[in-house]
Amino acid sequence: MELKDMLYEGKAKQVFLTEDPERVVVRYKDTATAFNNIKKATIVGKGKVTSAISALLYDFLSKAGVKTHFEELLDECDQVCRRVKVIPLEVVVRNTIAGSMAQRLGLEEGTKPENVIYDLFYKSDELGDPLMNDHHAVAMKLVTYEELQVIYELAGRIDSLLLDLFRRAGIHLVDFKMEFGRTAEGEIILADELSPDTCRLWDIETGEKLDKDRFRRDLGHVREAYEEILHRLQKVINQ
Amino acid sequence: MELKDMLYEGKAKQVFLTEDPERVVVRYKDTATAFNNIKKATIVGKGKVTSAISALLYDFLSKAGVKTHFEELLDECDQVCRRVKVIPLEVVVRNTIAGSMAQRLGLEEGTKPENVIYDLFYKSDELGDPLMNDHHAVAMKLVTYEELQVIYELAGRIDSLLLDLFRRAGIHLVDFKMEFGRTAEGEIILADELSPDTCRLWDIETGEKLDKDRFRRDLGHVREAYEEILHRLQKVINQ
Repeated sequence: MELKDMLYEGKAKQVFLTEDPERVVVRYKDTATAFNNIKKATIVGKGKVTSAISALLYDFLSKAGVKTHFEELLDECDQVCRRVKVIPLEVVVRNTIAGSMAQRLGLEEGTKPENVIYDLFYKSDELGDPLMNDHHAVAMKLVTYEELQVIYELAGRIDSLLLDLFRRAGIHLVDFKMEFGRTAEGEIILADELSPDTCRLWDIETGEKLDKDRFRRDLGHVREAYEEILHRLQKVINQ
Repeated sequence: MELKDMLYEGKAKQVFLTEDPERVVVRYKDTATAFNNIKKATIVGKGKVTSAISALLYDFLSKAGVKTHFEELLDECDQVCRRVKVIPLEVVVRNTIAGSMAQRLGLEEGTKPENVIYDLFYKSDELGDPLMNDHHAVAMKLVTYEELQVIYELAGRIDSLLLDLFRRAGIHLVDFKMEFGRTAEGEIILADELSPDTCRLWDIETGEKLDKDRFRRDLGHVREAYEEILHRLQKVINQ
């Protein structure tokens, strides 16, 4: 598959056009960024690991009947994906309270709510990805209420599947961020990536953080933690 | 009715216990505050006007079948109200985009959405009344999903009634904030106040702001604008 013009460059990925108008190549970069790009670093080998984890998780979801944009690995950092129009929303699912939600609402990190929490953030670097709600997203014509229902149903199903998969790997899926896209036919499918860059993952036994919070909070050993996640997932998947 | 201990003092009101355990007296103060109490002033006569407008609107809603905590005016600034446990949520209804929503999402003030927008804010001076969503409020056990449904139905009905009333007075109801409380029997009713302190009200002809934005944005003539609202509403109500 031949790569053509770069369509888009994000903080952690590049997207290239290909000779197939229905397909793009997504390249996972070695960059780590946090706090809306204020903190940046290069972590050699990170792109390879996040790409491998994302591919593994998307394969797993796909086998469980969840449609994703991922098709196949072209090489270690490059993924052939369906071309979709990404909806500019970050959909966050929280099984345990942490991160921005804990801060915003003055809650203790690690609090376990009785419900599953869904958040919407408006993807806008300029505005700092602000929190929004369904009504805001509809008013801005980003989605319809009907599409949001589809998105929340997908998000809930993905959460159940991943929560169980990670549990089998000895990892608690605290929260994770998804982005969805529309296919040419208007179907909404999972896009973007699923990796320790977009999930909070705590070791069930020790509570150790094995995700991007290691970078955000200067805990060190970022790549090693990501590799640990990959190896544990591979072990569970190959059982 | 004899006033006993002050139960609570807020930025614009005081609440007193009475000899009746089911009733409180709410006193409207002459203070104006904005930006989470950073900007403060005394506007002589404001308490009287906001109390009169709130009483008029609560009477109007009550006659339309909406239950509110308001019972009667004791004197100009003092209202006899049912004692309720206030749910620590600010429920905002927006017919036109303005204020914090316009700022947060980078939208032009005055944009007319096709849907009615509902926002929830967590009442917490310490945290600066942060935006939240239904899942957050349920996770924090402030309300149940079922109670939120009741609240949104009430909010939608109140919006329709007030939008029409203000329109007849030549005023566009841009947005407004409500607080709800639980009675001893667990019923959810409208509490707090409804006045130019808690609504955005624009003259339909001229676009002139006749609400607390006059204070927030230093436009002057705050009390006069509030009095204009009162007179126009009285005229419409007495027709």
